[in-house]
Formats: sequence, C-alpha cells, structure tokens
Amino acid sequence: MSKINLPKYYYNLKADLPELPPPPLHPVTGQPISPADLEGLFPKSLIEQEISTERFIEIPEKVREAYAEYRPTPLKRAKKLEKYLNTPARIYFKYEGTNASGSHKLNTALAQAYFNKLDGTEQLTTETGAGQWGSALAYAANFFGLKLTVYMVGISYDQKPYRRIFMETFGARVVKSPSRETAAGRKVLEADPDSPGSLGIAISEAVEVAMSDPKTKYALGSVLDHVLLHQTVIGQEVYEELSLLGEKPDVLIACVGGGSNFGGFTFPFVREKLKGENIEIIAVEPKACPTLTEGEYKYDFGDVAGLTPKMPMYTLGYDFIPPGIHAGGLRYHGDSPLVSLLYKNKIISAKAYPQLKVFEAGVTFARTEGIIPAPESSHAIAAAIDEAVKCREEGVAKTIVFNLSGHGYFDLSAYEAYFAGKLKD
Amino acid sequence: MSKINLPKYYYNLKADLPELPPPPLHPVTGQPISPADLEGLFPKSLIEQEISTERFIEIPEKVREAYAEYRPTPLKRAKKLEKYLNTPARIYFKYEGTNASGSHKLNTALAQAYFNKLDGTEQLTTETGAGQWGSALAYAANFFGLKLTVYMVGISYDQKPYRRIFMETFGARVVKSPSRETAAGRKVLEADPDSPGSLGIAISEAVEVAMSDPKTKYALGSVLDHVLLHQTVIGQEVYEELSLLGEKPDVLIACVGGGSNFGGFTFPFVREKLKGENIEIIAVEPKACPTLTEGEYKYDFGDVAGLTPKMPMYTLGYDFIPPGIHAGGLRYHGDSPLVSLLYKNKIISAKAYPQLKVFEAGVTFARTEGIIPAPESSHAIAAAIDEAVKCREEGVAKTIVFNLSGHGYFDLSAYEAYFAGKLKD
Repeated sequence: MSKINLPKYYYNLKADLPELPPPPLHPVTGQPISPADLEGLFPKSLIEQEISTERFIEIPEKVREAYAEYRPTPLKRAKKLEKYLNTPARIYFKYEGTNASGSHKLNTALAQAYFNKLDGTEQLTTETGAGQWGSALAYAANFFGLKLTVYMVGISYDQKPYRRIFMETFGARVVKSPSRETAAGRKVLEADPDSPGSLGIAISEAVEVAMSDPKTKYALGSVLDHVLLHQTVIGQEVYEELSLLGEKPDVLIACVGGGSNFGGFTFPFVREKLKGENIEIIAVEPKACPTLTEGEYKYDFGDVAGLTPKMPMYTLGYDFIPPGIHAGGLRYHGDSPLVSLLYKNKIISAKAYPQLKVFEAGVTFARTEGIIPAPESSHAIAAAIDEAVKCREEGVAKTIVFNLSGHGYFDLSAYEAYFAGKLKD
Repeated sequence: MSKINLPKYYYNLKADLPELPPPPLHPVTGQPISPADLEGLFPKSLIEQEISTERFIEIPEKVREAYAEYRPTPLKRAKKLEKYLNTPARIYFKYEGTNASGSHKLNTALAQAYFNKLDGTEQLTTETGAGQWGSALAYAANFFGLKLTVYMVGISYDQKPYRRIFMETFGARVVKSPSRETAAGRKVLEADPDSPGSLGIAISEAVEVAMSDPKTKYALGSVLDHVLLHQTVIGQEVYEELSLLGEKPDVLIACVGGGSNFGGFTFPFVREKLKGENIEIIAVEPKACPTLTEGEYKYDFGDVAGLTPKMPMYTLGYDFIPPGIHAGGLRYHGDSPLVSLLYKNKIISAKAYPQLKVFEAGVTFARTEGIIPAPESSHAIAAAIDEAVKCREEGVAKTIVFNLSGHGYFDLSAYEAYFAGKLKD
C-alpha cells in the first residue's frame, strides 16, 4: 500500500529545457500558430497549459478528487520476474492499469474533461486506436457530464469489440473510422474502401467535427504538450516512491506511441538528468511503426488530412499507415515534439521491438507477476527483460524501472492469436 | 485507502450456529460420509477445514502474502448512486473485483491451491460457469505451481472466449463441457449433442478425472463449507471497515449462486445477528434459476451424474439445467448447505430478479459509480437499488451494504446484447 500523497501539481518539462521545441506551424499559412488559432479545437484553459513554461501547474481540487479514486497507483518490485530471469537487477514497475479504463490515459482524460466543462464545452470528439484513450475519455466525459463521440480506428473497432462496448456502457457514441460522417473519412474510403484506418485518419475526422461547432471541442490523448503535462503525475509518484525505498533508477523504460505514457513517466526524471543525474532513459516502439528509430525529424502534420498544425517531430510521414499490429496505441506516424526533441538531443534513447518478442515478454510477465499486460506495455517489459538479462551477463545489479501503462484484459483476442501462432512480426 | 489490516483467521460460522446442517450422505450407500470418503477428491488439510467446528482457522502466512497483493479490498460509499436515486439511504459496497482474476473467487482459489500444494497434489481439476472461478484458480494454480484442467460450461465457453484465453494465458488447459473426455460428458452428449452444459455437468467431469488419479485433486469454487470459510475474509474486512466509519448495517445484500460470495460476505454479520443484532440479510438470485425462492429443501446431488455426496440444501433438482442467462455464475441447481440452513431457519431472506432488471441496474451503477459490474454482482445492485428506493418512499435513512463480487470487463458481450435489445428475461 503506497504511503505517498497525490501530486498537487503537474510538472512542466519546458521550464527546465535548455532549448524549447520549435513552434507548431499553421497548416495553411505555414506561420507559427497563435493561441487564437487553436480556439476552434480546444478550450482556453488547455491552450494556456499548452503554451505555458511555468514549472508547476496546479491540479484542480475536483480533478484530484477524481484521481483519488485510483491514485497513487502501485509501484511494485517484480521479484518473481527477477527470479525467473536469474538476474541481479532490481526490476520495478509502476502499474497504471488499476483504474476502470485500464490504462494511464485516464490521467489526462479527467483533466481535459474537467477543463472543457469549466470553459463551457458541451460535447467532445476524439479518436482512439487501441481503445484505451477512448475508454478513458468515455469514463471522464461521463464523470464530468459531457457528450462524447469517438472515432475508433477501423482495425481496432473490429479487433476489440469489448473496448467499443465499454465506451458505449459509459454513454459514448463510437464510430468506426474512416467513416462517411466526415469529408476526411469519405476521402479515404473513396481511395480504399477497405482501409484499416489509422490514428491519423481518425484524428482528421474528430478535428473536422469539432471545428464545425463552437460548443464541440476536440480532445487528444497524446502528442501535445498539455497531454504529456497531465501524465507527469505518474513520474512524480514514481520519484517519491523510489525515494521512500531509498532507490535511484539506473534505467527507465516506457513504450512510446504518441509519447504521453513515455513523457508522463520519464519527464520528472529527465529533470534530474538535466541537473546531472546519470539515468539511462529508453523509449520502446514497435518495429512495425519505428517513428523514432527510423523516422525523420521535421515539420509534419499530426493527421492524415493535413488539418492539424504542423509539428516539429520524428515522423514516418503523415500519410504512413502502419500494419495492423495488436499494439494499436503505438500505431502513430509521428511523436510528441517534446519527446522528439529529447531524442534528437540524445537525452533519451530508443529501441524498436517486433511483435512476437513483445507478446512472449507479456506472457512471461503474466505467469510471473500475475498481471496480463496490454500489448503496448509489453514493449516496455520486453526491453526491461533485455536489460535485466544484460545485467546477469555482465554481473551488474542495476535498478530498472518501467511503466506498465495498462492491463491487457481487453486485448485477450490478441493473446489468443499469439497462442494460436497467428501473429506475425 | 483502507486503514484496516488483513484478517489473520478465517471465520467458521459453524462454531456459532445453534444447529448444524445434517451431514452429507455417500452417493452410493446413502450413509453419512466420513472424511476418508473425501480423500479421493480433496487434500486432507481441506477436509479437516470442511468438518471443523473451530470458530477461527488460521490463514497461512504464504496465503496472507498472496492476499496482500490485493487485500484489503476497498469498501466504498456509492454517493453518486445515492444522489441519482435521491434516497436518504447510505449505500456502501465492498469491491472484490480489484484482483487480476476480477472477482471474489481468488480468496478461496489461493487457499485451495496452497493447501493442495502443501499436501502433495500435482494437478487440480475444476469446473467453471461464468469463468470467474476458473480464472481465479488458473491464477492461483500458476501462483503456487500446480497444473490445472478446467471444464468450462459450454454456453459460457462460447459466450466468454476472453475468460478462456485468460485461463490459458496463466497456463491452464480449458475444456468445453460437456466433453468427450469423460464418461459423464459423453453420456450428456449422447442424450443432447447440443447441450449448453451446466455447472452440474462440468462438476461431474472434473470429479471423474480427479478420482482416477491420486496426485490429481478436485477444487470446487463454491457450495462447500471450506470454500465459504475462505471467503469470510470479505465479511470480516467489511465489519472492520464499517466499525471504523461508525456505521452499522441495516441491510446486507449479496447475490447467491452456490453461496460462497453470499456466505463470505454475510457470515461474520450472521454471527452478530445470532447474538441479537437487528440486520436484514438478503440473498439475491436469478429468476431463471430460483433455487432458494422456488426450490425444495432436501438431500440432493451437487452434480448431474450423481458422483458427489448428497447434500442437504435447497435445490431445483440435480438434473435441472437452467436457461443460458448471462449471470453464468448463478446458474446452479443447488445451494450451499450452510446458506440453505440459514434460509430454512429464516435468519436470511431471498429475492429472485429477472435478467433485464439486473442489467438495467448494472448500467445505472456503471454510469454513476464508474465500475462496470459482473452480471452476477448486478443482482445485488438491483436489490440494493430497490431497498434504497423504498427508503426514499418511506423517508427512512437505512445503511445498505452490498457486495460487488466482481467486475464485468469480461462480460461486455452480455452488455452488448442488452443494449441491442437481444436479452430476454
């Protein structure tokens, strides 16, 4: 049982960065965007957070109350996994799957729903890939009394019916993307009626609908600075918990899709690293969507239709549609500008793992630690296992800490496919 | 965050009952069974617990360590539900769905796996209906290093593939029941090749396999005295938690299938009631399988093939096969002898609810309290809502406490059927 308290502030890495990311550019004019340019999409309070360089931003009391339902989340030592690997390493994991939506996404969903409600928003639109973000926002919208329409990436919609029903049980409307409800969706379907969809396409649809009505705003589950900001409750708790245990991490590991899980978990430690602490920080992505390890750092759109601002980031190209791997939350062509900048400046490193190795790690973790992980989170497990094995081979007792961003109880069809030998790398 | 400690003992109601249930009878001779008669099925340590009349039975340290991963479970006040119902009642619920297997079943699964391992068992067999028990035992068998074969009721096997995959991920072998692996299964299939199965049939299969090998034992997820004994950790925690809050329950509510959830939650309070406390204790069952409310109190077999001892209980007949309702864990023709005796002696009361009302209550609970309940648990919610509405009508502020025995994240296909209007009463 955790003895630490809930964080009172979000931590803003931008206050400590020696160099800020270049500004987002307007998709049409190519000029740096102004806060006013974003007002069609987001409420003012969240736009302020997006551009703020204040180090600490207060968490409102009502959001802290909502967090208190499931936070602080547990930090656990994976003793059985250590024993199974016969490693001298100490392996810890932060478990973000204890809330109703089953992943870290709820941390920002609650904040975004709250600030939207405060600023008069009546309806939210969003996209979801694996369904984790949509589930979290469905819970949060229901919690704070907002309507919600979710554009769900087509292949996930088919692979993960339970995620859709989850969102519907909390009152959300879920639409398979690409859909015929939007110009962006219709355009994709004309070119490819069997399109599996992608996060980029679904974002285009949700953005298009939000821009058409002033009481409807758009909520994004990753990539943007304010989203990563909200997720820093994770890393702040880990920092406190490790301090209580008298531990300092040698290696921090998290999976990366749009970057919110990775950023939220690592930024409070990036702060320490910038002050001189020696910490290896590893982002793990799927080999099928190798944004950091094989992408290019440049300005690119966040979506497929080119409706979002252009952002400075590692990208595989805004029209890249990744194969239908089961870690749907990591199927994104780009990455958070903040995470991208850290990678460009070699403050963090990155690794790409193929799907089968990831599922093997997930099953090993389930049978040792008793939690079935989300396929996204299993990327971090696979890398943690590799680090722990390296410790055994080198006879070094490092402290390895990874983020278990969510559980896999909605992903069991993927495990079934893995056991049946139907998954491919 | 709970401030109470883990219980150190299981509470044995038999120490406080003015009258013990009549003894189980041997299925062939019709004579009271001896402990030795049970040794083909269960390890000696569990047989001792089954017949013990000691008031407190110590929980082994290794089992307490396993419990500490998820216990004490939270006792929460359902303030949003109270507000939604506009009731003066105070509604509390104990939430047993926080562990990996998602229900209260893990409390006895861990104890049974531990004692079997201690006594030299190498393999366990069992049945599962909704899949909650099988999931719990799969987790527990993996935890303590035992092999496991699960005979899963056919209709649940088809309706709940994720439950099967869950068990397989933890290393269990799952067989659709009735199967051709056993004489009992083959007999049912000859009469009805499309049999949806039932708990009674699945028990026959698991028992038959266990009796054929001395290193293989059978584990039952409900009904028997030692199973209810293990579940009393729930009620003991609730008692402590309510005391800390300065609350005394006026009404206690739990769903009842075989009786382990109901017994574990209520027995520590039955003890108080026997001492003179004024507590209304309500068992809730499905209208489609109304064992207490419409069954007969008599000796009957626990399974369909007549392999188990005959037990004194309310029963719909050992060959009763309930319709395929979605609360699979409540589809059992009989009931725990201890719970049956309490009902016969009017220490507890019982209500039967139709399926649609139960799902309506489940959705109301999800949208107010943020947890999607298992259909079994929604029976208790439906009754708690009725009691709270009665409080509003009568202007009485009772304290209503129910057990939320598990979550519904593996039951979302049932919710989908409910939303689509496909469920029938």
